[in-house]
Amino acid sequence: MHPDVESIAFLLGAWRGEGQGVYPTIASFAYGEEIRFAALPGKPFLAYQQRTWALDDQRPLHAETGYWRPKPDGRLEVVLAHPTGIAEIEEGTVDGTTIDLTATSIGLSATAKEVKGLSRRFELDGDGVLRYEVHLAAAGQSLQGHLTAELRRVEGA
Amino acid sequence: MHPDVESIAFLLGAWRGEGQGVYPTIASFAYGEEIRFAALPGKPFLAYQQRTWALDDQRPLHAETGYWRPKPDGRLEVVLAHPTGIAEIEEGTVDGTTIDLTATSIGLSATAKEVKGLSRRFELDGDGVLRYEVHLAAAGQSLQGHLTAELRRVEGA
Repeated sequence: MHPDVESIAFLLGAWRGEGQGVYPTIASFAYGEEIRFAALPGKPFLAYQQRTWALDDQRPLHAETGYWRPKPDGRLEVVLAHPTGIAEIEEGTVDGTTIDLTATSIGLSATAKEVKGLSRRFELDGDGVLRYEVHLAAAGQSLQGHLTAELRRVEGA
Repeated sequence: MHPDVESIAFLLGAWRGEGQGVYPTIASFAYGEEIRFAALPGKPFLAYQQRTWALDDQRPLHAETGYWRPKPDGRLEVVLAHPTGIAEIEEGTVDGTTIDLTATSIGLSATAKEVKGLSRRFELDGDGVLRYEVHLAAAGQSLQGHLTAELRRVEGA
């Protein structure tokens, strides 16, 4: 494993859990989720894949894919593609098992819905629960809480 | 399958082959490559994963991941994440089995090397060979030929 990725090696493997979504412009919803982080030999990043599904009928909802690039000084760069037409850079910090990220670049395809801002916090607690929250500025709304979820590791690092 | 993705359904499955890279600022190189396109039930996009490796020792070289969003009028939007710190939107057209794409948004992370422009053409010929070429403007150079490759389907649609 590349030494740069050691700071986020606690994320390696597959995680599953459930989350809740809220926003002023939509009905609240609950979802199932799987996240996978994988290392490549000698590479200074982790590959990241995420997908969510409806709890009632398992139909696919959101998905994301990209790469997490930690730096030796505690900074973290995340590069994400969304199937909704968004190509996004998020940057922030790793402090122990707490990760804070804020979007620094949000590219939109011609038919994508406008997203003005995104931020996320991930935190792994001592009981092995990975919690995150996502704040979103979209649909003319200011940056505010959108998603919260709790996941547990289902496949080893 | 969502009807919007029918125009690029000829890409579904896994493709393998070899390519060559040239650029004024680097030594020319040859590489092996695998590309995968997958549909999700009812979703108007294909998930895309690409990786390349050195032909001499199989060490991983580049990788990309993202989503291809075809539109009913022949337009195509592609959302890509690169582990080099680039989050990119490419847009263009699908004409039969020829796809032309040009980057319309290139987001760079703080430590990414600057990329000013990217364009690609994919073409599937009647013998089942998928050819592409990538033009790149980076490292202070103007947009020019960078990659060419030929791939064949190794797993069905």
